[in-house]
Amino acid sequence: MKGAFTLSNREKNRITVDIYGQQYVILGTESPSHIRHVAMLVDDKMRQISSRNPGLDVNKLAVLTAVNAVNDYLKMKEHLERLQIEQEKE
Amino acid sequence: MKGAFTLSNREKNRITVDIYGQQYVILGTESPSHIRHVAMLVDDKMRQISSRNPGLDVNKLAVLTAVNAVNDYLKMKEHLERLQIEQEKE
Repeated sequence: MKGAFTLSNREKNRITVDIYGQQYVILGTESPSHIRHVAMLVDDKMRQISSRNPGLDVNKLAVLTAVNAVNDYLKMKEHLERLQIEQEKE
Repeated sequence: MKGAFTLSNREKNRITVDIYGQQYVILGTESPSHIRHVAMLVDDKMRQISSRNPGLDVNKLAVLTAVNAVNDYLKMKEHLERLQIEQEKE
């Protein structure tokens, strides 16, 4: 993998991570340990989904991993919004 | 795309969505509108990242989209945890 990827617009750290057997260069303001943690979670998620969907090609596996991650994000966001509404009521 | 993907373990709804020009069958307990919303966000994210990284192949684009989504998820989770700690202090 030769390309460099952007995790955020204000670039700072340049970290090489391994996701599903492929190397990626991630650029971001986040700490190297945060970036490695994110990469590890993506790698785990891809392996989980792959084991539930044997024979899935890596491209579709990656898209489905993104779908799952966005779904987790939205659920967390809804939970946060409910908490904030409750706080306002108090 | 012929395969069926699992968004959650307790399957219920079977929704066909279009992400980055490819059709995916998503199985999940979430409502069809929620699943379509997730798919639309993934599609948007892939197009955003693609425009910032021209020439990126679709597989790496999908992995980077998953990296961004997991990063967003973790940030939201940390925010939620801080809120909960503040609530406990009150």
